[in-house]
Amino acid sequence: MLVLGIDPGIATTGYGFVKTNPAGNPELVAYGVLSTSATSSTSMRLTSLYEQVRELIDHYQPKACALEKLFFQKNIKTAMTVSEARGVISLCISQAGFEPAEYTPSEVKQAVTSNGNAPKSQVQEMVKFILEMDEIPKPDDAADALAIAICHLSHARYKRLIDEQG
Amino acid sequence: MLVLGIDPGIATTGYGFVKTNPAGNPELVAYGVLSTSATSSTSMRLTSLYEQVRELIDHYQPKACALEKLFFQKNIKTAMTVSEARGVISLCISQAGFEPAEYTPSEVKQAVTSNGNAPKSQVQEMVKFILEMDEIPKPDDAADALAIAICHLSHARYKRLIDEQG
Repeated sequence: MLVLGIDPGIATTGYGFVKTNPAGNPELVAYGVLSTSATSSTSMRLTSLYEQVRELIDHYQPKACALEKLFFQKNIKTAMTVSEARGVISLCISQAGFEPAEYTPSEVKQAVTSNGNAPKSQVQEMVKFILEMDEIPKPDDAADALAIAICHLSHARYKRLIDEQG
Repeated sequence: MLVLGIDPGIATTGYGFVKTNPAGNPELVAYGVLSTSATSSTSMRLTSLYEQVRELIDHYQPKACALEKLFFQKNIKTAMTVSEARGVISLCISQAGFEPAEYTPSEVKQAVTSNGNAPKSQVQEMVKFILEMDEIPKPDDAADALAIAICHLSHARYKRLIDEQG
């Protein structure tokens, strides 16, 4: 199963594709960031983001897409801008025929490090280890997106095991 | 000039179409609300909203679209949900070839009542008066959308006068 994890943002959206290999373990397929120009208007940036996410999905044909649930406490202006980008990405995923899976930051940390309160550096080290990468994936948005994809594969695996025992 | 004003929301999005009549005054064309089902997932609601806004624009062919700038101070969860809807609506407008015009709540109040701090009831009374309606437009989201459209027409008129004086 190929999963697309996305860490939404108006300037930089991280993405990561992870699949299950024949041994049943997560395997890296691709990762990176989608950028929009700071000199464009917000609506033009949202349009560019929409087109880039559609292209990613068309190109890689994932079987599931996952996003982090947002829990902003502080900067409401940032929260609102990220939410606009997140809405557009949810729309893209829905139009591609998927219901986006959503995980809280602590669910992602738990799935990747077995510690729901793990620091960012530990999550990144585990992403590198799990996906057998030479370096920690950069930038942070891409590493976060890979962690979300790994989290979804882990949840999907447990769900399958439970269903099979059903 | 036909203007579409929109008051975004995930459950209910108000819309109002207002045009300039031959005498140069705002004239009502249509208004109402777009609804999405509370039993659907957020991504399905965003998809439904996207399709409904596209249909509105295709049907009425406005020459400009305007939204209210959001300044939430309190409930961050509501702010984030509204922002997801707002992002999808901005995308629709941009894909239709327009740059959405944006006005603060006080700019809208100022344009409609000449008082940037006017209470909601006064704004609604003025919308009814300006558009020569028999009743205050209902629901509130539709009245807000009409006020935004009137605000844009007023700004566009001043802009034209200034441009003409060059």
